[in-house]
Amino acid sequence: MYTIEKLRDIIQTELNKKEYAEHPISLFEPLKYILEDGGKRLRPVLVMMAYNLYSDDIEKALQSAVGIEIFHNYTLLHDDVMDDAELRRGRQTVHKKWNTNVAILSGDAAAITAYKYIGKVEDIYLRRVIDFFNNVAMDVCKGQQYDMEFETRDDVSEDEYLHMIYQKTSVLIAGAIRHGALIAGAPEEEYDELYDFGGHLGLAFQLQDDYLDVYGDVEEFGKKIGGDILCNKKTYLLIKALELANQEDKALLNEWLGKKRFDPAAKIREVTQIYDRIGIKEVVMAKIEDYLEKSRKTLEKIDVAVERKQHFFTMLDYINGRKK
Amino acid sequence: MYTIEKLRDIIQTELNKKEYAEHPISLFEPLKYILEDGGKRLRPVLVMMAYNLYSDDIEKALQSAVGIEIFHNYTLLHDDVMDDAELRRGRQTVHKKWNTNVAILSGDAAAITAYKYIGKVEDIYLRRVIDFFNNVAMDVCKGQQYDMEFETRDDVSEDEYLHMIYQKTSVLIAGAIRHGALIAGAPEEEYDELYDFGGHLGLAFQLQDDYLDVYGDVEEFGKKIGGDILCNKKTYLLIKALELANQEDKALLNEWLGKKRFDPAAKIREVTQIYDRIGIKEVVMAKIEDYLEKSRKTLEKIDVAVERKQHFFTMLDYINGRKK
Repeated sequence: MYTIEKLRDIIQTELNKKEYAEHPISLFEPLKYILEDGGKRLRPVLVMMAYNLYSDDIEKALQSAVGIEIFHNYTLLHDDVMDDAELRRGRQTVHKKWNTNVAILSGDAAAITAYKYIGKVEDIYLRRVIDFFNNVAMDVCKGQQYDMEFETRDDVSEDEYLHMIYQKTSVLIAGAIRHGALIAGAPEEEYDELYDFGGHLGLAFQLQDDYLDVYGDVEEFGKKIGGDILCNKKTYLLIKALELANQEDKALLNEWLGKKRFDPAAKIREVTQIYDRIGIKEVVMAKIEDYLEKSRKTLEKIDVAVERKQHFFTMLDYINGRKK
Repeated sequence: MYTIEKLRDIIQTELNKKEYAEHPISLFEPLKYILEDGGKRLRPVLVMMAYNLYSDDIEKALQSAVGIEIFHNYTLLHDDVMDDAELRRGRQTVHKKWNTNVAILSGDAAAITAYKYIGKVEDIYLRRVIDFFNNVAMDVCKGQQYDMEFETRDDVSEDEYLHMIYQKTSVLIAGAIRHGALIAGAPEEEYDELYDFGGHLGLAFQLQDDYLDVYGDVEEFGKKIGGDILCNKKTYLLIKALELANQEDKALLNEWLGKKRFDPAAKIREVTQIYDRIGIKEVVMAKIEDYLEKSRKTLEKIDVAVERKQHFFTMLDYINGRKK
């Protein structure tokens, strides 16, 4: 059994070799750049963890795990262009450091690189791997499409929001886990269950991100508190607040959303106070716990020795603990 | 045996069904739009023609042929953004009609759609199809990268130019032919030879495009003559002219290249006269004939009944005739 840290090391060592970089090197510089910025390597770690549920011969999962990480980074390259983001993990985004054309084309090359690596599996799994990954990749696109469409709408429902973050974020997390189990030779019903497990885990992750933006510890969270509030981002917290607020609070919230000029600290403080009055903190916490509980129940059903599942259980506990 | 026209009809009928369009429909509107604008359907026709060399059961090649056409159109969506093109076949480009984000994301969705369709082959061919197509797709990206890099260079050699257009254009044409033969069960040495055949065919096509921009019949060519000259596009004609011109003509050519303000008709006329003095017309024609001859020689070696190859031979004659 491999610990999460050990798996992350193995993946990082493999990424450091930069074997994915072909000629002309200029086409792959942006991919190297974005992959150098660290990150948790969550998705490839999940591929390897899921593989490790069934087999210790984890080297066999390494190349396609790297492919999943490259795919994730390709989506970041293009998303940053579409969102016109300046920074990612404290560094200039690719389209700011180079330009938009570079981000588009090196992103396209990264997507193809991802397909190359994800296909590095035994032939008996290839059909299922490719068909499934195509669906995952398409869901990620669809999630991004909904995310962009929601920016200009002020009537996004809770269900629509959850569906959007499910496609944009959870499907790749769930897909990484299912993929790892599949190429380890898990039975179909088990890798499908692990997909459910990962889907709920991904939703918990994303809601936790929304939560931590308002209620996180700035040192532990690693980024500024209240960023979502300042830019009126349609998070789960905001959507539920608009749904649950009494008329007075709703009017106040809409007033803050409509203000073009404001003191940032005041906006964060006031909106957080509205959230507190409505009890949004407890609403989100309950939703996260609900998803984690669903994940836990599914994980319990997976028919491998309980020690094998320990790192996944620890991960669920960690997420649950982090938000308190 | 199916004629080229019949194959084009079959492909067009399949595209008209728009089965590739998923929800949200907004994500697929740009792909529908660009696929509606006609075009010769050259690449899917080539898939079907190559398949038809070995088998009449062409329905089996239809879905992956459609995938190749979708892939081609995905590259057009992104290339038009990178080139900031206004028009494509007389219609507004997607990023002008909608916006850049729409062109990027719907292009990404189109790329995934292409992978879905190209993978619709018998399982015994899947590994070879996917591995090969990944290489083709990457070459197309690399060709686009070189094309963009060449824009800011004034020392692009003939070899560099030919390598660039080979990757950007020929590889997908060659790849379509190889793909059709592969999934029809052709022996490896034959689909590899057909790849060579297609590579030279693609180069002839691209050089013919360069040629027709200067020496084409405006009615037959369907676009304005001299467009490449006006924007100083580094075509085969310009590269060879700069290489072969005497000092006087070279100075004159560079003067026209450097002019910020000029009468368009005068620039086209004068540059064409320089080309004529150098004998560029004959240089390009000889190069095209050389490539077509290479294609012909390779096609002759393919071990199928000569009637089966007739449409390919006709295609070579057609290209050869068109430029005269």
